[in-house]
Amino acid sequence: MVQYTEQFILLLFFTLKNGKHFIFITYLCSLIRSITIIIYMYRTNTCGELRMTNLNQEVILSGWVQKARKFGGMIFVDLRDRYGITQLVFNQDTNAELCNRAAKLGREWVIQVKGTVAERSNKNPNIPTGDIEIISSELAVLNPSETPPFTIEEDTDGGDDLRMKYRYLDLRRSVVRSNLELRHQMAFATRSYLNERQFMEVETPVLIGSTPEGARDFIVPSRMNPGEFYALPQSPQLFKQLLMVSGFDRYFQIVKCFRDEDLRADRQPEFTQIDCEMSFVEQEDILGIFEGLTKYLFKTIKNIDLPDFPRMSYADAMRLYGSDKPDTRFGMQFVEIKDLTAGKGFGVFDGAEYVGAICVEGAAAYTRKQLDELTDFVKRPQVGAKGLIYVRYDLDGALKSSVDKFYSVEDLQKWVERAGAKPGDLLLVLCGETEKTQKQLSELRLEMGARLGLRDKTKYNCLWVVDFPLLEYDEPLNRYFAKHHPFTSPKPEDIPLLETNPGAVRANAYDMVINGVEIGGGSIRIHNSELQKKMFSVLGFSDEQAQAQFGFLMNAFKYGAPPHGGIAFGLDRFVSIFAGLDSIRDCIAFPKNNSGRDVMIDAPSTVAQEQLDELNLKINPHETPVTNT
Amino acid sequence: MVQYTEQFILLLFFTLKNGKHFIFITYLCSLIRSITIIIYMYRTNTCGELRMTNLNQEVILSGWVQKARKFGGMIFVDLRDRYGITQLVFNQDTNAELCNRAAKLGREWVIQVKGTVAERSNKNPNIPTGDIEIISSELAVLNPSETPPFTIEEDTDGGDDLRMKYRYLDLRRSVVRSNLELRHQMAFATRSYLNERQFMEVETPVLIGSTPEGARDFIVPSRMNPGEFYALPQSPQLFKQLLMVSGFDRYFQIVKCFRDEDLRADRQPEFTQIDCEMSFVEQEDILGIFEGLTKYLFKTIKNIDLPDFPRMSYADAMRLYGSDKPDTRFGMQFVEIKDLTAGKGFGVFDGAEYVGAICVEGAAAYTRKQLDELTDFVKRPQVGAKGLIYVRYDLDGALKSSVDKFYSVEDLQKWVERAGAKPGDLLLVLCGETEKTQKQLSELRLEMGARLGLRDKTKYNCLWVVDFPLLEYDEPLNRYFAKHHPFTSPKPEDIPLLETNPGAVRANAYDMVINGVEIGGGSIRIHNSELQKKMFSVLGFSDEQAQAQFGFLMNAFKYGAPPHGGIAFGLDRFVSIFAGLDSIRDCIAFPKNNSGRDVMIDAPSTVAQEQLDELNLKINPHETPVTNT
Repeated sequence: MVQYTEQFILLLFFTLKNGKHFIFITYLCSLIRSITIIIYMYRTNTCGELRMTNLNQEVILSGWVQKARKFGGMIFVDLRDRYGITQLVFNQDTNAELCNRAAKLGREWVIQVKGTVAERSNKNPNIPTGDIEIISSELAVLNPSETPPFTIEEDTDGGDDLRMKYRYLDLRRSVVRSNLELRHQMAFATRSYLNERQFMEVETPVLIGSTPEGARDFIVPSRMNPGEFYALPQSPQLFKQLLMVSGFDRYFQIVKCFRDEDLRADRQPEFTQIDCEMSFVEQEDILGIFEGLTKYLFKTIKNIDLPDFPRMSYADAMRLYGSDKPDTRFGMQFVEIKDLTAGKGFGVFDGAEYVGAICVEGAAAYTRKQLDELTDFVKRPQVGAKGLIYVRYDLDGALKSSVDKFYSVEDLQKWVERAGAKPGDLLLVLCGETEKTQKQLSELRLEMGARLGLRDKTKYNCLWVVDFPLLEYDEPLNRYFAKHHPFTSPKPEDIPLLETNPGAVRANAYDMVINGVEIGGGSIRIHNSELQKKMFSVLGFSDEQAQAQFGFLMNAFKYGAPPHGGIAFGLDRFVSIFAGLDSIRDCIAFPKNNSGRDVMIDAPSTVAQEQLDELNLKINPHETPVTNT
Repeated sequence: MVQYTEQFILLLFFTLKNGKHFIFITYLCSLIRSITIIIYMYRTNTCGELRMTNLNQEVILSGWVQKARKFGGMIFVDLRDRYGITQLVFNQDTNAELCNRAAKLGREWVIQVKGTVAERSNKNPNIPTGDIEIISSELAVLNPSETPPFTIEEDTDGGDDLRMKYRYLDLRRSVVRSNLELRHQMAFATRSYLNERQFMEVETPVLIGSTPEGARDFIVPSRMNPGEFYALPQSPQLFKQLLMVSGFDRYFQIVKCFRDEDLRADRQPEFTQIDCEMSFVEQEDILGIFEGLTKYLFKTIKNIDLPDFPRMSYADAMRLYGSDKPDTRFGMQFVEIKDLTAGKGFGVFDGAEYVGAICVEGAAAYTRKQLDELTDFVKRPQVGAKGLIYVRYDLDGALKSSVDKFYSVEDLQKWVERAGAKPGDLLLVLCGETEKTQKQLSELRLEMGARLGLRDKTKYNCLWVVDFPLLEYDEPLNRYFAKHHPFTSPKPEDIPLLETNPGAVRANAYDMVINGVEIGGGSIRIHNSELQKKMFSVLGFSDEQAQAQFGFLMNAFKYGAPPHGGIAFGLDRFVSIFAGLDSIRDCIAFPKNNSGRDVMIDAPSTVAQEQLDELNLKINPHETPVTNT
């Protein structure tokens, strides 16, 4: 009955809204006993904008009931929309009928209210509208709501699964929505910056051909070309290079890319890149433009002035941090002490290719229990170290270590000196095969940074990592792979090494790293067909394979390709860093779970047999279609 | 040998570019006999920016050789980049070695030149740089080019197929590139306008679930969920409505959409929409914002001030133009003359449901041959009329018609009077079943508009078509279909008709039409679960079907959906209209042909059996995979 009344009111409301003023009609009807007030125009203001300067104004607001509470003869309703929250007041003494209707409002009902802006006696300094409230004179329910499955508040009682199933309700929470507002701002500011600098946004196709390198492609069967498939792009790499061949000079695109990979916290099957390419440039030009972009984003969105970004070679990054994306918000750089440890009868160090330490400031007082925890940490399979050696440099100058049996105080003194340790510091030492140990020590360093509170999410340290190796050797497959991609240009002075020692060739490649996260990466490309052929041969492609898979790009390069290079940023990660999120999932409106499912719309799903027939496809009969995992 | 030299020079050039000044080195080498000049930095200016104000400046330019010609002891080279063309001069008398090297340059070679800006004796008023030329002092070939398969000029000798195969060369033509520059400008201006007005761009997923309404979906097999498929979105319709339920208030997205349809000139399997949605609005709010957007685009990009857009009901559009997207650049509105033609013994008219005429101004002098051509035109199967009746209103006032046998001059006088014809005009008349005949008359009207030069591509007539029917009846299937989509709201006053006469229900739906092209369309949505259920039942969906296919949206509406509505523009068509193109293909960087193929990269293509195995798929064995169509 109530619902029918609402619909009827709405119907009348639409029918009668011809005037530009409010139409008040009194309508008697056998079905409706009460006198109904119809309001024209959904709102004069949003729920975030009224202030003391609006006192005594008559306003109309629309929004969601955040909560309602009775207090004396009054009902207070917090009305919410994207822009904020405004308090509504219904007074039993002045309008009992209205107040009684307000008493029936539930959480998340959509209502429209007319009233007058008044000063609050109990001001709320926590919200921008906290100085005022609306003395309500009219109320219309635009849509009622069932009780939501979790509370729509900053700290919700909804678990991850429930929030994902009802993502449209989760997005009502300002803490989630603000991530998407930030995302919009960052994308818009990026476009403004690049547009100013003559970059053209060009849309490249989504239905393309499959490429063999890198991760698995998603494929799309073609109905018009039976037995054939499109692929979804992992990046617009080939197209942006073709646009340079076309003379587009400065290209960018904020674009969805796709990878059919097993997922984890910072991976989604579809993700967004800020993809860029420039002609007639060298590495320095690209670093300049995109360091500028990053500074511009920090300035316009967070009002942070960043200093110039330091450059670090890949070799230094590995040597000092054991990572090509070092978190430089804190020091704790690696110190190699292999030479200082040798020949004292400690077989573990003597047999190790690498012995490295980090100096943890002020941690000499760590208890046995804490040190055991750290040992357990490095022994976890994800880290994989065999054990942890420590040296305590006590405040009184005493040196105690877990290898006192082998090393004298004088020996240890040399270690702490090299590490620049002060009394009160703790030295943590790992050893083993160089590359593996550096990675383990990197994990330990990050763990210690976190424990000491040095990984502050409000602090931003940006740097460029440069001089990457061009190739990576794959032991089991006995071949080289391109570290970036097969179009990355070697440093010209290293070209002769392609023949003699391919692993030592450095690339004109660069990554931008912020707080230990790789935000973007790119390279100067090979624009010369001969060099590209050479590169394919090093990668083990036969001429035929190279021609079949990249022939069209190699052909394009025959018709006057300019020198060019580019970069791509992961927008999802970039936004996460700005928002201080640990996962990219919460800056994506409708993310997928770790099984690649959208649990809200329940996709993927089975399709009708006729559709498969049209596509000339069959599902292998020995597998049963799984509807839900 | 030449190529090796080039590579060697490039290598040196990279090796030695440490200084911020130009490094000139002289390098003697057994392989290289000539003295090589190395230039640091690819360019100081683009090929489009130098003017008389730059006289005597030393500059470096890089670009493509548009053409080279000898004249006396000089060689003139037109150097081209995205920004323009600049003339280079090489002088045999002052630098013979350089001039000899310039003589070897071919079309589309990429070169770099250093020189001094000088005033031209033979100025070229057709290009902005036409007052100056560069007296060249140094030259480096950055990349040679094979002879391109067609000339890279405004009017090319390349046919469509060749141009598509070498699209990267076709895109070098300024006439094609400028369409993409326009596209970038329009997208950027659209974002600026909407951002100013609190719209948030939100990315909705590309891998979604299949929807049953509308055109065929492209589907994507899921590896992680065997036997299940994602679908690519035909539009973000459901997601944008969910965002309104989430309280996003104002959403937009410039987004790729996908339809697996048979293609024609203005259809592509992937296309781009400017997709928008707003909450707490009525039709009037949406028309206001997006009429504003269109005016803003015309003003900022074409410097055209558009008047307010007229509104036309669907019924009027059909009655006066026989089309829901009338080309209003010219009049020639339909005139119904059934009543004037009845009862004079002309069975064809008497038996027709509809007799309609258009008045073609100044066409009374059309010859027999021209009139026969028009008769042939309307009889073409694409138009489908049985014949054409004409009335000539000669300049001397005489009236002659092809039905003189049945109608007196007095009869014809009434026809021309109603049509508002003047002496010198021609009346063209069609008759038959109303809707069919109106469509035929519409084709004839457009043809006459074209013949009379009234469809001027530099003139823009915009209008809103409103009050669309909510439903369309499908005779063979004996059911109603949603004319826009199943979420379109009926006009509240027509809701009762849903029970009694669904075909008469009008929708809160609107289309923006420019020059006879539907540029955008949208509607106010149903936000009430009950009304939505009613709608599905009218569309013949069982509760179970509706729940299975749209359940998640109907569920979402239970939790407080605001009143909302939106619109989507076809960006490809919008750009075509701005660019004066007949097909959307030339404002898309890498379009597909009518078989859905990208002939440049040769996609779609077959995939490896292992990939199909991983996806648990089989191609039906009775079909042979087709590699090329």
